[in-house]
Amino acid sequence: MSDPADFSQLQLLGFDVFGTVVDWRSGVARAAAPFLARHGIDAEPHVFADAWRARYQPAMETVRSGARPWTRLDVLNRENLEDVLARYGVEPDAIPAAELDELNRAWERLDPWPEALEGLARLKRRFAIAPVSNGSIGGMLRLARFGGLPWDVLLGAEMARDYKPKPEVYLASIAAAGYAPAEVAMVAAHNQDLAAARALGLKTIFVRRPHEHGPRQTTDLHVEQDWDVVADSLLEVADALGCP
Amino acid sequence: MSDPADFSQLQLLGFDVFGTVVDWRSGVARAAAPFLARHGIDAEPHVFADAWRARYQPAMETVRSGARPWTRLDVLNRENLEDVLARYGVEPDAIPAAELDELNRAWERLDPWPEALEGLARLKRRFAIAPVSNGSIGGMLRLARFGGLPWDVLLGAEMARDYKPKPEVYLASIAAAGYAPAEVAMVAAHNQDLAAARALGLKTIFVRRPHEHGPRQTTDLHVEQDWDVVADSLLEVADALGCP
Repeated sequence: MSDPADFSQLQLLGFDVFGTVVDWRSGVARAAAPFLARHGIDAEPHVFADAWRARYQPAMETVRSGARPWTRLDVLNRENLEDVLARYGVEPDAIPAAELDELNRAWERLDPWPEALEGLARLKRRFAIAPVSNGSIGGMLRLARFGGLPWDVLLGAEMARDYKPKPEVYLASIAAAGYAPAEVAMVAAHNQDLAAARALGLKTIFVRRPHEHGPRQTTDLHVEQDWDVVADSLLEVADALGCP
Repeated sequence: MSDPADFSQLQLLGFDVFGTVVDWRSGVARAAAPFLARHGIDAEPHVFADAWRARYQPAMETVRSGARPWTRLDVLNRENLEDVLARYGVEPDAIPAAELDELNRAWERLDPWPEALEGLARLKRRFAIAPVSNGSIGGMLRLARFGGLPWDVLLGAEMARDYKPKPEVYLASIAAAGYAPAEVAMVAAHNQDLAAARALGLKTIFVRRPHEHGPRQTTDLHVEQDWDVVADSLLEVADALGCP
């Protein structure tokens, strides 16, 4: 590690959400289980969740690359659901659209990691806290109300109409909140997210989430740069930032 | 009153903020008092606040009319401060810019009306709550942190890069949160704001704030249409919407 980072200017903490704050895999599997059973789809729910999620980055990439105009994550997830069902041999037209819409809302009903609410509450006493997520504002709103996430403001992809790790997402989010990059830290369980934030002058806080992708996770188990803070939970982040 | 409104679809309450939720006049006067004394400006602080606020609608109108490109309220307030000081015979250049910036932040340090926090807490248990204000996202963020306003999401002018009562502000705010107009109610102390919201299909909730403009207020003392709810406080709004 290099010299300890100087957090004296810090005002705003921007959080990655899916994986860093909430456990998307368990939540999506929980919603998928009765759906899969009802339709006789032979898929283990967590594997189904992984397959659905595997389409997440490629779908966002079509927007990032400019091949496709701005499209909110809710819409991409809904399309990806039809793709993954097709892979399991299900004709999407065989299932009422309203039922697919309902399953798609699983992404708005994800449990926070066990310590996340306490960690956010401690951090919020001193810093403004906000999602800087690829989720939509509406999706972040309903996710926060489902899980009790006490955000001060909802930032992220929709502020720039593009997806992380494109710099515009961080910069538009910071600008909307009225801060300079040096006044902001990005908190994420993903090295790539922090690399993009650091390149813009934000502070970086890595939270290890070694089970985001289940028991056999291979990604983001280790830090790839000397992030300003490395922690195993949001409580440790609060400790590191002096938030009792 | 006509038949009671049907609130069964209601999901989101959008609030006017300046005047409806927070007492801007007292807060601006409180911040202005030591500034005026320090610079020997012969102005009663509440009268100074009124004079500053009087430039609010004309400044926004330059944006609404298209005469001026999108400009955030923080910037308009800062310009208006120089205008009002000039009227009091003060050369703005005689005062350091940082001091004017600091006084301008008075708009982010306004007390909620006495019952507002309890009312919002009750309403938030059942509905998503959001400012749909002409203030900026950053201004709303700092105002919420100053006063403890428990917003779920910050909406308003910046979502449309235009100012209320232009329909785009309401429509962009609702769209960002992912709701239909019939699922949203506007809560405001100003008839004009509710008239614009009703024209778009939103429900309308009028909260009387007869001292927003001080003891001799003449505007918005009475309802101008049969709004869906008329109340004297946010507690009465919570009562009317069945939020114990």
